[in-house]
Amino acid sequence: MARPSSWQLLRDSYPYYVEVPPRYADLDPMGHINNVAIASMFETGRVSFHHQLQAHPRELGVRWLVAAVSINYLEEMHAPHPVTIASGLRRIGNTSWTILSAAFQEGECCSTCETVMVAKGAPDSGPIGEELRARMAPFFVKVPEGAEA
Amino acid sequence: MARPSSWQLLRDSYPYYVEVPPRYADLDPMGHINNVAIASMFETGRVSFHHQLQAHPRELGVRWLVAAVSINYLEEMHAPHPVTIASGLRRIGNTSWTILSAAFQEGECCSTCETVMVAKGAPDSGPIGEELRARMAPFFVKVPEGAEA
Amino acid sequence: MARPSSWQLLRDSYPYYVEVPPRYADLDPMGHINNVAIASMFETGRVSFHHQLQAHPRELGVRWLVAAVSINYLEEMHAPHPVTIASGLRRIGNTSWTILSAAFQEGECCSTCETVMVAKGAPDSGPIGEELRARMAPFFVKVPEGAEA
Amino acid sequence: MARPSSWQLLRDSYPYYVEVPPRYADLDPMGHINNVAIASMFETGRVSFHHQLQAHPRELGVRWLVAAVSINYLEEMHAPHPVTIASGLRRIGNTSWTILSAAFQEGECCSTCETVMVAKGAPDSGPIGEELRARMAPFFVKVPEGAEA
Repeated sequence: MARPSSWQLLRDSYPYYVEVPPRYADLDPMGHINNVAIASMFETGRVSFHHQLQAHPRELGVRWLVAAVSINYLEEMHAPHPVTIASGLRRIGNTSWTILSAAFQEGECCSTCETVMVAKGAPDSGPIGEELRARMAPFFVKVPEGAEA
Repeated sequence: MARPSSWQLLRDSYPYYVEVPPRYADLDPMGHINNVAIASMFETGRVSFHHQLQAHPRELGVRWLVAAVSINYLEEMHAPHPVTIASGLRRIGNTSWTILSAAFQEGECCSTCETVMVAKGAPDSGPIGEELRARMAPFFVKVPEGAEA
Repeated sequence: MARPSSWQLLRDSYPYYVEVPPRYADLDPMGHINNVAIASMFETGRVSFHHQLQAHPRELGVRWLVAAVSINYLEEMHAPHPVTIASGLRRIGNTSWTILSAAFQEGECCSTCETVMVAKGAPDSGPIGEELRARMAPFFVKVPEGAEA
Repeated sequence: MARPSSWQLLRDSYPYYVEVPPRYADLDPMGHINNVAIASMFETGRVSFHHQLQAHPRELGVRWLVAAVSINYLEEMHAPHPVTIASGLRRIGNTSWTILSAAFQEGECCSTCETVMVAKGAPDSGPIGEELRARMAPFFVKVPEGAEA
């Protein structure tokens, strides 16, 4: 698993974010926010990101499935500080797209996440139609010139 | 994110497993077992794997943290069929180790997981002492000769 | 909130049970199984109880909703001992029914639960049709004569 | 299980509240916020209520345990509207106290909760010392004269 690039740690690299306050159920016996709870926060940020595209898969006649998730845990996170989940698109392929996300607490990037989504049940226009591509276009992450992903 | 190797999809490649029956809370609005719920099942399998090593981090004077998790979702999973989480070690470094896991339902591999664990708070013998290495030694995954990880 | 009756603490008072192994995510910073995690185990036992009635609400044209849940936590529960969730019916009304459940660990009753379910969207036969009542009939809890609920 | 009194449905009856935005993991196959997820939201509201008393049980040399929880589900709740969890004290006894809570979505009370907490491991001053009682005193629910609890 590759370490995140330095630009992935910057809040301004992402076009969209939500605030996710920790819950007591996020804490585990180590007293910190559990790694799976952080995965759940990333999911909530991702669903909200999709939601604001105003393109619901059911209305498009397709299903969107999570094909892969890769998370780096950089710093421990603790309650009760709110968590900011920032997200943006990295790549759109023929049937899948990749979302990069980062979790911040008190301004510090504590975790990064890469998610591959796949659309199943292709309508005539292909699994990712032109309208969805147009809606997605403004929401890419900002990658510095010359940077690798 | 790399696709899993074919041997990673085989139950017999792993030296340890636990059964995890699905719960109603694992299901999401798509009616299947949610991807984060699967991450939680992998966590339970991993903690059980560590537990059977009979080497508790607190007794060793260290903390074990999850540094990275990467999951591939290959097939959708559904209740109420029990999930088998199989796990084994792939690599032991100086301060970290990697666990490979796979989730099976009705004999089919539905998901694979790679976890990097890191030990913090090094005692004199180093973060991963000789005793722990000895306990870990019998629990590596079986990688076919010539196969890449 | 009334304390449970003594017969509610006995495994044999209930006609149905499932085994629910704890997960790491059930543990909270106090190191024990969290009270909401126990509520989730009761839910899993309840859904399994309903499932074995072979009467799915969707097929009956109704929705089954949880109207009320009341849980007594009698003893702390710990991993990794499996939890037995025993369940049975206490009462069937016109549009609702009550399920009593109990959670056992190593033979000891650690928690009891009372759930009121309500059926919405009545078909011609009423929300709880004769067929469902017939299927439910064998699955009442065994209340000793003279005992109060 | 008693139905909540009418004053329990009013936001102004409670001295303290927190906002809890729904997460995707709160949703179940029925598409609404799951009843156990609502229990988890009440827990988060309760822990926050305790936290603002600035009386941490560990510092007081005691453990606070949840002895009983009783929840009425009055209206279905849906994402993504934020949930307001309002809480206040109803009773302080010798070793236990009762918290009443209510969950609001878009101004409507959708669920009420009654929790009995118990303090274990009594110091010399008794399980609930004078200082804690003094801190709790301003945070009772407002019960109309003549109303029953």
